[in-house]
Amino acid sequence: MDTIMKQIRISFVVGIGLASFLISGALSARDAGVINMAALGAKTDGSDTTPIVRAALAEVRRGEATKLVFPPGRYDFYSVRANEEYLFVSNNDAGLKRIAFPLQGMEDVTIDGGGATFVFHGEIVPFLIGDSNDVSLKNFSVDFIRPFHSEGRVLAVTEDYVDLAFTEEFPYEIRNGVLVFTSHQRYSGPATTVSSGEVLYPYSSLLAFDPEKQETAYMAKDRYGLGEGAAAEEISDGRVRLKLPNLSADPGNILVFGPAKRNYPGFIITDSSGVHLSGINLHHCGGMGVIAQRSADLFLKNIRVTPPAGGKRILSITADATHFVNCTGRIEMVDCLFEQQKDDATNIHGLYAKITRILAPNRFEVRLVHPQQAGVDFIKSGTRLELNDGPSLQRHGFARVKSVERINKEMTLVETEAPLPEDIVVGDSIADADANTADVLIRNCVIRGNRARGILLGSRGKMVIEGNTFHTPGAAILFEGDSRYWFEQAGVRDVVIRDNTFDNCNYGVWGNACIQVGSGIEKEFRSTSRYNRNIRIENNLFRVFSPLPLLSMYSVDGLTFVDNQLERTEAYPVPEEKEEKLFVITNSENVKVEDPRMVSKRQRKEMTANRGNTVIHPKAVNLKDNRLRHAFH
Amino acid sequence: MDTIMKQIRISFVVGIGLASFLISGALSARDAGVINMAALGAKTDGSDTTPIVRAALAEVRRGEATKLVFPPGRYDFYSVRANEEYLFVSNNDAGLKRIAFPLQGMEDVTIDGGGATFVFHGEIVPFLIGDSNDVSLKNFSVDFIRPFHSEGRVLAVTEDYVDLAFTEEFPYEIRNGVLVFTSHQRYSGPATTVSSGEVLYPYSSLLAFDPEKQETAYMAKDRYGLGEGAAAEEISDGRVRLKLPNLSADPGNILVFGPAKRNYPGFIITDSSGVHLSGINLHHCGGMGVIAQRSADLFLKNIRVTPPAGGKRILSITADATHFVNCTGRIEMVDCLFEQQKDDATNIHGLYAKITRILAPNRFEVRLVHPQQAGVDFIKSGTRLELNDGPSLQRHGFARVKSVERINKEMTLVETEAPLPEDIVVGDSIADADANTADVLIRNCVIRGNRARGILLGSRGKMVIEGNTFHTPGAAILFEGDSRYWFEQAGVRDVVIRDNTFDNCNYGVWGNACIQVGSGIEKEFRSTSRYNRNIRIENNLFRVFSPLPLLSMYSVDGLTFVDNQLERTEAYPVPEEKEEKLFVITNSENVKVEDPRMVSKRQRKEMTANRGNTVIHPKAVNLKDNRLRHAFH
Repeated sequence: MDTIMKQIRISFVVGIGLASFLISGALSARDAGVINMAALGAKTDGSDTTPIVRAALAEVRRGEATKLVFPPGRYDFYSVRANEEYLFVSNNDAGLKRIAFPLQGMEDVTIDGGGATFVFHGEIVPFLIGDSNDVSLKNFSVDFIRPFHSEGRVLAVTEDYVDLAFTEEFPYEIRNGVLVFTSHQRYSGPATTVSSGEVLYPYSSLLAFDPEKQETAYMAKDRYGLGEGAAAEEISDGRVRLKLPNLSADPGNILVFGPAKRNYPGFIITDSSGVHLSGINLHHCGGMGVIAQRSADLFLKNIRVTPPAGGKRILSITADATHFVNCTGRIEMVDCLFEQQKDDATNIHGLYAKITRILAPNRFEVRLVHPQQAGVDFIKSGTRLELNDGPSLQRHGFARVKSVERINKEMTLVETEAPLPEDIVVGDSIADADANTADVLIRNCVIRGNRARGILLGSRGKMVIEGNTFHTPGAAILFEGDSRYWFEQAGVRDVVIRDNTFDNCNYGVWGNACIQVGSGIEKEFRSTSRYNRNIRIENNLFRVFSPLPLLSMYSVDGLTFVDNQLERTEAYPVPEEKEEKLFVITNSENVKVEDPRMVSKRQRKEMTANRGNTVIHPKAVNLKDNRLRHAFH
Repeated sequence: MDTIMKQIRISFVVGIGLASFLISGALSARDAGVINMAALGAKTDGSDTTPIVRAALAEVRRGEATKLVFPPGRYDFYSVRANEEYLFVSNNDAGLKRIAFPLQGMEDVTIDGGGATFVFHGEIVPFLIGDSNDVSLKNFSVDFIRPFHSEGRVLAVTEDYVDLAFTEEFPYEIRNGVLVFTSHQRYSGPATTVSSGEVLYPYSSLLAFDPEKQETAYMAKDRYGLGEGAAAEEISDGRVRLKLPNLSADPGNILVFGPAKRNYPGFIITDSSGVHLSGINLHHCGGMGVIAQRSADLFLKNIRVTPPAGGKRILSITADATHFVNCTGRIEMVDCLFEQQKDDATNIHGLYAKITRILAPNRFEVRLVHPQQAGVDFIKSGTRLELNDGPSLQRHGFARVKSVERINKEMTLVETEAPLPEDIVVGDSIADADANTADVLIRNCVIRGNRARGILLGSRGKMVIEGNTFHTPGAAILFEGDSRYWFEQAGVRDVVIRDNTFDNCNYGVWGNACIQVGSGIEKEFRSTSRYNRNIRIENNLFRVFSPLPLLSMYSVDGLTFVDNQLERTEAYPVPEEKEEKLFVITNSENVKVEDPRMVSKRQRKEMTANRGNTVIHPKAVNLKDNRLRHAFH
């Protein structure tokens, strides 16, 4: 690849004029290893910046530069001349993907956006950091010209249908009686036997948002199973009757059509270490915001997942803000804003593979069961596997891998150095015992308005969660892990949760407490399983309208809840049938739980002023800190 | 790979019992390089044969066998333990595909099915022959448990809808008001944010077939643009009202739902030579039957593309029966039956790439424009390119490739050894001047009842088409080629068409003559372009009901039509507005056309008896030679 690149290096500079590059570009574009992207040909006129990035990265690969700097302005990126790679990205959808910034095999590289906005067009991944070390990306905004999701304002809801109004932001057609979301360009190619290549925006789910509160609508439920479309008719231009009965939405809500796939995450980090992301507004992408797998030492500072200014969209990105799979070293998220994305703010976990056949005492077949983990291989010669009982998630020992044969993205044949313990049976699971061990710091972040939960903690390393503000419709903090459906390896060892504000969480349907264990331990094994350990919760403020418990936990060894404060609010209606109980803690040991100190509004204000956390006023969301938003239009 | 395979060789024998293999299998399974697949563990009990094939191929790779033999019976193949590869397959759809028989890197290998039936389940390619030489496959039938297309019997047609009846062969659901074709297994997984992994059978087009005549319905038109589904409701169990207006179908027709993608061709042959396929019934696959690219010396004998016996389906396979792209050496199709497939019987052509940017006198960018040619790279260092004028397809010289950089599956940067001629401009096209040169023999084949045309001839080698019987709804023989839409390089040099029977062709909408030029030469250049050369048509019998010409041709240098016979029939109604004219030949030179000799039915019967061709009686198709069909159920 490198040789070819050198041979036809000049052809990288598509669109910038051959002569000018040869005469002046090579000198003026860089200064002590810094490439000025404008000098290299990047323009703010809407033209394609992708080939310029490729040219710059070729310079970097030749060792002629270590830093790319963009002057302020808007730069556009198209897929047509982007490199592509088949990528298996955990918890997103695999595929052959075009990549605008293909940062592969990089060492010690910085991209400074200089406050620029990067606008992506169509089916393209903004950033891939693969097999790289010490990569810094900073100071820019990311958006897409046409979001991967769509939004319609709810005009009416009946038992038989919902009427919606769509703005030009979300072009659509009714095709053969089916609602189809399209690109801004209407497809004009001939109709033939051949797949058209038209870019469409398929949806698979619906969820109502409240545009006043800028969050998921109170107790709104997901509607799934729409992957094959839904019947609809156009009432008038821009107004559509969607023939779905009993939808969970009210007039005035914004109904969000969730994309059928998570094909285009914002930042894919794989098999890399030393990644620093800072000062980035991530307004949109078609998958998770930052997804890191098999990587180490990942630092996110001042990352703002938020819709673009202007009020044209209620959703920011279409899945989790961040997600970390089999990561080691250190993970930090500091001073970040994660709001209005279509799923959790973060989830830090490992991978379980299911044992599907045992062929010999030291030979067996495993399967990556979760469709979005398929291909995310983690078993290599030399890997130390933990062997886990499926129903209880309890460990039954370790085994060292001797050899591996990958049959396909799901199935792998494994040979271990020693025989497996006899109590390991088909249906049990394995994980890499030494991955998913990152120490984690989540500090001074604001998480609000997104679908589902706040943070899912599953790393086996030390985790500190401090000074954050949560305003999540589900649990703010969830301890997950299971080898039955999600196949996410978790089971924490050392977690400190302190100085946070839990600000009227649980206004939606995704959880049964503010801080919750949801690990997939079958009920009859919860009394003996101690999957999560050493969770210390101290000096947090809980503002609650909800009758749900503050804590709902089981199978924990070591739980401390001390020096916390509680403020009652009336932020939302209280479901009448719920029974209030502050703590639901079962099948656990070494538990120390103190009732929280009740505080008044005034006391709370003093407290939070001293602490520096933001308290969110759900009913006055238009007053929220606009400094966190970055102008794009 | 080989090392890993050896290390865990034993794990291949999943499902056959470890001990028996170690003790007896290694000896009894083979005899002088022949593997008895039953001895190796293949069973006719519905269990998965895929791992057994993988075990056998591992033996072959180790040089321990050259032949696999199946005892008679039915063998089933599932995708779950099949190897997979990302494949770019010309004129089909690219993707990561599971493969039941992954014949890669093979030399001198034979698979003898012994009359067995191979039944495939779900998303799997039956055969891949890649980077292999001298591979013979013979004596078996191929079918799928659930076809990739679906069929409904037409009950009623109105201006607003069509009512259809579906058998259990084609399971469906009405989901959210949309007609969806499903697997036999109903999906039962949980509804979540994750793509389900459910296997569905999406459709994108409709075409009516006549179940009495076992062919496309008289003058039926394709309905395209259904890729996003169509609104429908269930009238009663198995009866569906499809809300599509003005469909081209009549009550009693079978409406075929064409698959949205060509993902699962029957036999993919790529970068291989010396491939012999014989005695194969190809009842179904989800793409082309045999697609060969960048390969040489391909021999098809007694290949029968035909629906399974039993009358449960009218369609055989979902695209062209065979297709050859950039092939060299020799292509033979002898004693084959190609019937009721969803597209042409064959198409033999090269590939054009479009010049999209000229960066320097010897550097330019090209694009593979046709979405189903993307990734089918044909330009390498050393390739001799022909340089073609886009509108006229006339050649403007040659250029030798010095280096290539592939940007992505569509775009490639090319550097040539010498500067391009000055008259080459953006929009012109290139092709490999030395590919698509196979000599072709198509002898004693029967082509009937399929959608569209018979054979599309575009090889630059010598082609002999003799003793075949065509009963095609469009042109029986078409000379295509264009660099505007299909980007198929053609332009024949030497074609002999003799001793064939053209039996009431043109009963559909896909052509304007029995033998036709349809090359994409813009009209103002037809007077000077001589894209096709030396076509000799002699001693053929044309049985015609149609007022369309026998020949419709332009831009030909060298056309001879002598010693042919014509019989008038009343096989179909004659569209009234058509004007009859035997020959429409324009902008051509060196043309010798003699009127055919008129023959009576009696004279024709004597002729065809002597010659041995079958004449097809469209209205008595139930009498057709059932020896050509192979019992499956």
